[in-house]
Amino acid sequence: MKLLEDRIRQEGRVYPGNILKVDGFLNHQIDVVLMDRIGEELHRVYKDCGITKVLTIEASGIAIACSAARSFGVPLLFAKKTQSLNLGKDLYVTKVASFTYKKDYQVIISKRYLNENDRVLIVDDFLATGNALLGLIELCKMAGASVEGIGICIEKGFQDGGKMLRDAGYSVTSLAVIESMTDDGDIVFRS
Amino acid sequence: MKLLEDRIRQEGRVYPGNILKVDGFLNHQIDVVLMDRIGEELHRVYKDCGITKVLTIEASGIAIACSAARSFGVPLLFAKKTQSLNLGKDLYVTKVASFTYKKDYQVIISKRYLNENDRVLIVDDFLATGNALLGLIELCKMAGASVEGIGICIEKGFQDGGKMLRDAGYSVTSLAVIESMTDDGDIVFRS
Repeated sequence: MKLLEDRIRQEGRVYPGNILKVDGFLNHQIDVVLMDRIGEELHRVYKDCGITKVLTIEASGIAIACSAARSFGVPLLFAKKTQSLNLGKDLYVTKVASFTYKKDYQVIISKRYLNENDRVLIVDDFLATGNALLGLIELCKMAGASVEGIGICIEKGFQDGGKMLRDAGYSVTSLAVIESMTDDGDIVFRS
Repeated sequence: MKLLEDRIRQEGRVYPGNILKVDGFLNHQIDVVLMDRIGEELHRVYKDCGITKVLTIEASGIAIACSAARSFGVPLLFAKKTQSLNLGKDLYVTKVASFTYKKDYQVIISKRYLNENDRVLIVDDFLATGNALLGLIELCKMAGASVEGIGICIEKGFQDGGKMLRDAGYSVTSLAVIESMTDDGDIVFRS
């Protein structure tokens, strides 16, 4: 998606350790106009899949999921990362290993809001190791819901999450795939 | 806002301890059409205030902030609740005492995205003690930004956060104010 790639080139900042900061428009300050274009693009790809729900994980996926859900005309559901005292007991729970934070965390959704009739589009801001997405896929399996597609803003193509998910048979649509980054800030996109 | 009050009556669930669960449309599963109506209503109230940014706190405020930011045609910024390893060092940081989780946490924003030229609309899903909002106000003060208004979906009118913020001179717009709730599930709205 050229609009997204251009924005990453213009405003992305590369830090040592293959860290790409896009917190000016994607995951801290958020450009909702760009989010809407992203939502429309995901709708273009998955509009014939009978999507009933957009699923993401807090917090950075929520803005993207809002725009995608609007395009599909369905609710969004965001998985929570810790056991909320207020969430109730009827939960699907699974564990995710975080690459960024170097520790495991739980992801949870309420059983009320996902079931075997749901056809799910999972969305998130980044795909690197794919661990968070595996957690969301596991929650869908627990609910008996089908994962119709996975929509990602930025895939780090030099990490193995994308290959792992595609090899497992999932339809992964990454709107920008980074082939390589240098510590000098050069970003090469996969064409 | 009648649309929101009706939805709370229809789908809200009251639990002992004055807990109101609205996770079917507001803060777990999210109805983006309702969020858009909420964003439009906040725009109607604050459209002449020169808002440059919508500020909220992860995670439940983000969906509301997306819709409000779209109505105002400005970016949204969400404060993060823990020190992210990837967020960088140039941060405004303050502490919030959580009523729900019975412990303190830090809220942070990047200095890049809020400054003395910003006129801020703060939004959140709930107002009870007001502690999270005080944290967001403090971040605005650190940045020299002016708080033009505070837009809330559901205010628990029987807790003192709303009075405290209004007494301090802030313009607080709560789209549904709950006067009282009973453990039987009866909800009385302030008229």
